[in-house]
Amino acid sequence: MEVTSDSLDERFGRPRNHTFSRSGVRIRRFSVAGQSQSELAALALIDAMKNANIKGDSIDLLISACGVQEQALPSTACAINAHAGLPKGTPSFDVNASCLSFLMAVKLAATLLSVGTYRRIAVVSADQPSRGIDWSEPEASLIFGDGAAAVILEPGNSNQGVQSFLFKTYPEGRSLCEIRAGGTLCNPARGASDRDYLFRMNGKKVMKLALQNMPAFMEELLASKGMSVETMDLIIPHQASHLGMAHMSKRIGVDPSRIVDIYSTHGNQVAASIPTALHEALASGRLQPGKRALLIGTAAGLSIGGMVMDF
Amino acid sequence: MEVTSDSLDERFGRPRNHTFSRSGVRIRRFSVAGQSQSELAALALIDAMKNANIKGDSIDLLISACGVQEQALPSTACAINAHAGLPKGTPSFDVNASCLSFLMAVKLAATLLSVGTYRRIAVVSADQPSRGIDWSEPEASLIFGDGAAAVILEPGNSNQGVQSFLFKTYPEGRSLCEIRAGGTLCNPARGASDRDYLFRMNGKKVMKLALQNMPAFMEELLASKGMSVETMDLIIPHQASHLGMAHMSKRIGVDPSRIVDIYSTHGNQVAASIPTALHEALASGRLQPGKRALLIGTAAGLSIGGMVMDF
Repeated sequence: MEVTSDSLDERFGRPRNHTFSRSGVRIRRFSVAGQSQSELAALALIDAMKNANIKGDSIDLLISACGVQEQALPSTACAINAHAGLPKGTPSFDVNASCLSFLMAVKLAATLLSVGTYRRIAVVSADQPSRGIDWSEPEASLIFGDGAAAVILEPGNSNQGVQSFLFKTYPEGRSLCEIRAGGTLCNPARGASDRDYLFRMNGKKVMKLALQNMPAFMEELLASKGMSVETMDLIIPHQASHLGMAHMSKRIGVDPSRIVDIYSTHGNQVAASIPTALHEALASGRLQPGKRALLIGTAAGLSIGGMVMDF
Repeated sequence: MEVTSDSLDERFGRPRNHTFSRSGVRIRRFSVAGQSQSELAALALIDAMKNANIKGDSIDLLISACGVQEQALPSTACAINAHAGLPKGTPSFDVNASCLSFLMAVKLAATLLSVGTYRRIAVVSADQPSRGIDWSEPEASLIFGDGAAAVILEPGNSNQGVQSFLFKTYPEGRSLCEIRAGGTLCNPARGASDRDYLFRMNGKKVMKLALQNMPAFMEELLASKGMSVETMDLIIPHQASHLGMAHMSKRIGVDPSRIVDIYSTHGNQVAASIPTALHEALASGRLQPGKRALLIGTAAGLSIGGMVMDF
């Protein structure tokens, strides 16, 4: 369901324009109460299969690439598999690299395809940050939106695919962006409070750590094949926040016109952000066969990830 | 800390031998209250690095392959990275295929090594089922033990490595073995009860579903290269339960003498079971260079996974 920033202002008795001016989001979507994360993911996968006229029985592997799991055990992929009605036996597992789960899953899928382990792989990202918002957080509560997106990957021709990939983790930032509970660390038996299940972020520190490491990261990502940001037809960033995206584009020196920015109409959809932005770029015709795109972003952890892909 | 079945009988006022006769476990380990899952994992990784005389700065990638995460966000791998003191930037992410996370992570790592993306990859599994035991469950409460194990993988010679790999998911079994809470489905804001954070299992139905699919699975796993169970020097199964392991060895037709069975002294350590059994096989000299092992098991989901590896 669509949630405007105006309606959030109203709900919390805040002055008009408060939420938009602070978050940069005009509208985001929240799942209805009865819709699970895996159901949302399955809808995206079914839509992708339909669009490409692909039947479930030709999908060799399903990778769930969400930022947060649906439940502690088993994997979210099992539930997506069930809701999408994939054939009995379709191998399914989760990859988790927070907001960069999609990027990592695509890299793994591309590698598995390249050696022939599988011939067709579905990667699905779905997140429901609305289920973990702490409405007392003045910053983090305003930026998120639920969402799901899926891709189906198969071997391309020799001009297509992943041209460069880099992923780096700086765990000194792991408590800057977290949901403490939900696993072995913090649960009812260990004295967790209800707030431990909500998302908490120190946005300023996250951004500082990310920007500090970004220049060297970009250099390493693009160095391998003598690439440069200028040769990218399109930049598809994780839609972290309006400030984060502005700072990043400045830091890597790219003109905003080449950036896919769906943030104001979707918010930060966690791991679903990059594939949703990719979908928008393809659906709108901004991204076409023969084009080169840079997928890039940061993730709770803190990780930075980037991928140059030829379409 | 070591927990004998006798001490559990005492703790719960049960007749002597009750816990052992029902579970087949004589002794298991429970983490002390202050030790986190990622600390446990890091100890295993540091131990592996020490044993192989490998320094952290030569590890190109860390994959956390646990059954349950340490917290909902970010990935467990970030925390393991921090506790193991890996160099700044070491890429780290999670793979989750429940009890078969290790198997899947090794397959992914082997594939990444084979195409040269990375040259040395650490895979670490750690689980603390003691944090999610429902002591009112007459069966599931008795079988688990905490544990951690790590491997460091690098390209071998042409006679080594993964010879066959198969993974299948049957999501009709996903509610037979689960922890419902901890993610977007079930949390305090959505009316979760404390019991939702505890592990629940229908052991009989899990076993039935697994055994029903096992013969066809084995055939497909071994068919690719004309292998047979008889040519395996060693079988390293997931240490699910004593009945489960007995049924499985019968179903796949292997003599118990070729099975690595550490169940009675460790219990079911979730995703850490297979790598711990692998460690025991290597440490005891049962598994040596030139030998062929079959790693096999089932996982909540329900998934069945198998890998033939030449050492």
